[in-house]
Amino acid sequence: MNRFLVAHYISRILVAGSLLLLIPVVVSMCYGEWSTVRVFLIVTAATVILAAPLALIKPKNTRMYAKEGLMIVALLWIIYPVIGALPFYISGVIPSFVDAVFESVSGFTTTGSTILTDIEVLPKGMIFWRSFTHWVGGMGVLVFAVAILPANNSVMHLMRAECAGPQVGKIVPKGKDTARYLYIIYGVLTVVVTVALIICGMPVFDSICHAMGAAGTGGFGIKNNSIAFYDSAAIDIVLSLGVMLFGINFSIYYLIITGHIKNAFKNTELKVYLMIILAATGLIMLNTTEFYKNVFENFRYSFFQVTSIMTSAGFATADYTKWPEFSQTVLVILMFIGACAGSTGGGLKVQRIIIMFRSVKKSVRQTLNPKCVYVLKGEDKSMDTATVHGVQTYFILYFGLMIISLLLVSLDNNDFATSFSAVVTCINNIGPGLNKVGPVENFSFFSDRTKIILIIDMLLGRLECLPMIILLSPTVWRRKF
Amino acid sequence: MNRFLVAHYISRILVAGSLLLLIPVVVSMCYGEWSTVRVFLIVTAATVILAAPLALIKPKNTRMYAKEGLMIVALLWIIYPVIGALPFYISGVIPSFVDAVFESVSGFTTTGSTILTDIEVLPKGMIFWRSFTHWVGGMGVLVFAVAILPANNSVMHLMRAECAGPQVGKIVPKGKDTARYLYIIYGVLTVVVTVALIICGMPVFDSICHAMGAAGTGGFGIKNNSIAFYDSAAIDIVLSLGVMLFGINFSIYYLIITGHIKNAFKNTELKVYLMIILAATGLIMLNTTEFYKNVFENFRYSFFQVTSIMTSAGFATADYTKWPEFSQTVLVILMFIGACAGSTGGGLKVQRIIIMFRSVKKSVRQTLNPKCVYVLKGEDKSMDTATVHGVQTYFILYFGLMIISLLLVSLDNNDFATSFSAVVTCINNIGPGLNKVGPVENFSFFSDRTKIILIIDMLLGRLECLPMIILLSPTVWRRKF
Repeated sequence: MNRFLVAHYISRILVAGSLLLLIPVVVSMCYGEWSTVRVFLIVTAATVILAAPLALIKPKNTRMYAKEGLMIVALLWIIYPVIGALPFYISGVIPSFVDAVFESVSGFTTTGSTILTDIEVLPKGMIFWRSFTHWVGGMGVLVFAVAILPANNSVMHLMRAECAGPQVGKIVPKGKDTARYLYIIYGVLTVVVTVALIICGMPVFDSICHAMGAAGTGGFGIKNNSIAFYDSAAIDIVLSLGVMLFGINFSIYYLIITGHIKNAFKNTELKVYLMIILAATGLIMLNTTEFYKNVFENFRYSFFQVTSIMTSAGFATADYTKWPEFSQTVLVILMFIGACAGSTGGGLKVQRIIIMFRSVKKSVRQTLNPKCVYVLKGEDKSMDTATVHGVQTYFILYFGLMIISLLLVSLDNNDFATSFSAVVTCINNIGPGLNKVGPVENFSFFSDRTKIILIIDMLLGRLECLPMIILLSPTVWRRKF
Repeated sequence: MNRFLVAHYISRILVAGSLLLLIPVVVSMCYGEWSTVRVFLIVTAATVILAAPLALIKPKNTRMYAKEGLMIVALLWIIYPVIGALPFYISGVIPSFVDAVFESVSGFTTTGSTILTDIEVLPKGMIFWRSFTHWVGGMGVLVFAVAILPANNSVMHLMRAECAGPQVGKIVPKGKDTARYLYIIYGVLTVVVTVALIICGMPVFDSICHAMGAAGTGGFGIKNNSIAFYDSAAIDIVLSLGVMLFGINFSIYYLIITGHIKNAFKNTELKVYLMIILAATGLIMLNTTEFYKNVFENFRYSFFQVTSIMTSAGFATADYTKWPEFSQTVLVILMFIGACAGSTGGGLKVQRIIIMFRSVKKSVRQTLNPKCVYVLKGEDKSMDTATVHGVQTYFILYFGLMIISLLLVSLDNNDFATSFSAVVTCINNIGPGLNKVGPVENFSFFSDRTKIILIIDMLLGRLECLPMIILLSPTVWRRKF
C-alpha cells in the first residue's frame, strides 16, 4: 500500500474539514459565547497546523487503488470524529473523553444516540455543532472534500467507499461534479425544511438545527424531550415529510431537476420505500388506536415515528416503548430495512431488500423448474451476479458483525431487548432503541467498553462495513508497493 | 405437476408410517393402559383404511421431478404430524386440537417445545409416543419409508428435500442403501446412549425415552423439570456427550465404519463444531463461576446447556434465564449456529456458517486485490458458486421468514425477548427460549394464532424452508403436466 499517499490525502481532507469548525464559531459569536469560540478556534488551528505539512508535500505516485481509497475513508472516519469530539471535551460540557467521542461519532454517522442527560444546558455553539455534525456526516466528509478540493481522477474510489447503498450514485460522469451536484441538492432541501419549520412557528435557531438533523437523517434533538417539546402537529408533519425527502435516493432529485420526471417516478425503490412507510403507518395506527383521542392524532404520531425510524433519523415525539409489542416490532423491522440507497439514511437500504427478495424468488423458481432460465431484473435492466453476490455478502457480514457486537454488549448485563436494540440502532445509525435505550432514554449508563463497541458499530453501519474491515486485514498492512 | 403421483406416494408413506404407531401400542400393553392401546389402534386402522386405496393403484407416469419431491415432503410433514397428534387429542390428554398438533409437530420436527404443564400425569404409552416422534422425526419419516418400501430410482429427490444441510449426504450410490445405512447407524447409537443411561442409574423406560430424544436432538423431557429431576452428574455428562454424537454429520460415522478414520477426523466441520462447543462452554463457565460451588459443577451445567442448545436438543438441567445476560446471549447465538449438516440437529448448521465465513473472506480479499483470483474451498475441494449462492439464499430466506413470524407472534403482546426467542427456538428446532419461554416454562400461554405460526416455523426449520414455500407457489398449483 502507498502509505504516503494515504497520509497525504487524509491530511488534505482534514485541513478542508477543519474549516467546517469555523461555522459554529460564527454561531457562538452571535450568542456572545466567547469561551466556546476560543475552544473551536483552538481545535481548528491545531488541526491545520498538524495536518498542513503532509498536505502540502505532493506524493510522487498518485495512482490510487481500491485499497488506498478504503484505507483513507476508514482512517478519516476515525480521526475526524475524534477532532469533532474535542470541542465537547475541552470545553468540559462532556467530561468523559469516550462520551465525547461517542457523541461526535453518533453525530457524524447520523445515528443520533446521545449520552447527554440534559441537552438544554449546553452553549448554543455546542448545540449547533452537534446538529451540524449530522449535516456534514449525512452527505459525507469526503464528498465535501471532493467538492471543494482540486480535482483528481481517482476520487470516485473515495466517494464509492463513503456513499451508502449497493450501487454508486454516479449521476454525472465526473466525480467532482457529482459531489457538487449532491451538495447543491442537499443544501437546497435543507433550506426548504428550515423555512418550513420556521413557518410552522419553530424558533429560527431550532429550525436550522432540526433541519440539519433531518437532512443527515441524524436525529439529535436540541431539547431534552426531542420534538415532543414543541407539541405542534404542523412541526411533526413537516419533519416527517422532511426526513422522508432525505431518505430518497438523491439521483431521483437529479432526474427531476434535469427534467426526467417520468423516469424518476418509475423508480422501483422509491415506490417500495413509500409503500413500506404507508403500510407500517397503517399497521401501527390500527395497533395504537386506543392511545390517541382521534384518527388525526393517531396518524400524526404513527407517521412521525415510522418515518423517523425508517429513514434512520430517530427523532421522537412519542415514547413508543409504551405502545403494544406489535408496533415496537414493526419499528425494529423498519430499523433493519432503512432508507433508500444513495440517500443520507442508514439501515440495510430498500434497494438491498428488493435485490434480496428478487434473488430468493429467482432461486426458488429455478429449483422448481431447473430447465428454465430466469433473469434477475434491477431497475428495468438485468442485474449482474456480482451485484447480487455483493449484496448477499454484505448481508452476511452485517449480521455477523451484529452478533459479535451483541455478545460483547451483553457483558454489561442489561436485558436482552436493551442490548439487542442498542446494537441494532447503532449499526443502522437510527438513534433510539427499546427498553433502557428507548426514545426518552439515553446511552450514558453503558460502560466505556460498550460505548466503544457501539462507536465501532456506528462507523461500521455508516461506511457499510468494508472500509472498517480493511483496517483489520493483515495483508493490507504487510505489503508495501 | 403430477398430482396423482404425489397423492400415491403420500398414501404409501402414510401406510408405512402408520405402522410406527404400533410401537407405543406395545408399550401401553406392557403397562396395562388399555384405553391408550385402543386409541393408538383406532388411529392406525383409520390411517391404513383411508390411505390404502391410493397406495395400491400404480400411477402410469412415475417420473418424479424436484417439484413433486418437494410437494410430497411438504404435504407429508403436515399430514403425518396431524395423525401423530390424534392419539393426544382423542385420548383427551391434550384437550385442545391446536395444542395437540403443536406437541406433535414439536416432536416430529425435534424441537421439543411443549404446551404441557404437567407431563408426569400422562399414560406411559403417550409419554413414549411423544419421545418416539423425536426419534422418527430426527432421521425423517421419508428416510424411514425409503428404507422399508420397494426401491425406486427417484427417491433421492425425496431424501434430498428432507435431509438437513447444504449438501446431500449421499454416502452410498443408491438412495435406498443410504437410507438403510443411516437407520442402522442411528439405531446403534440410540441403543448405546440408552445403555449408558441405564448404567448411570436412570430407569429403563426413562432411558429409552431420553435416548430417543437425544437421538433426534429433540429434547422432550418426561419429567416436569426435565433432566434436572435426576440430579446426577453422570447422567448429565452422558446426555451431553449423547446429543453431541447426534449433532455430528452421519457420513462421518459411515467413514469410520468403513475404515476411513483418518479422513473422518480431517473433516473441517467436525473440528469447528467441537471448537465452538469448547469455546462456548469455556465462556459460560467464566461468566457463571459464582453460581456454582466448584469447577466441576460449573463445567457440568455449562457443558450440558451448551451441547443441549447447540445440537438443538433443548434438554435442560439449569434455568439459564437466571444466568448473566452474556451467557444467555452465547446460548442464543448457538441456537442460530446449530449442529452439523447431515445430522439430526437443527439451526443454520456449522457447515453453512463455514461456507458463509469463507465466501465473505473471499469477497473482501477480492475487493482489496481485484486482479487476484481466489478459489473458495469446501472440504478439501474447490466449491462451486451454486452451493455458495444456495447457502446465501437460504440465509436470506431464513431471516426473512423469521422476521415475518416475529411480527405475527408480537401480536400476542408479550415482551420482545419472549417473542424473539420463541420464534428463534422454534425455527431452529431447539425447544426452550428466554423469559416466558425459558427452560422451566412452557408454550401453553400463547394464543392459538401464535401456536399455529410457531407450528409453521418448526416445519420451516426442519425442512429448511424450500418444501414449505412450494405450497404457497401459485405456479406449482396452476400447471399440470
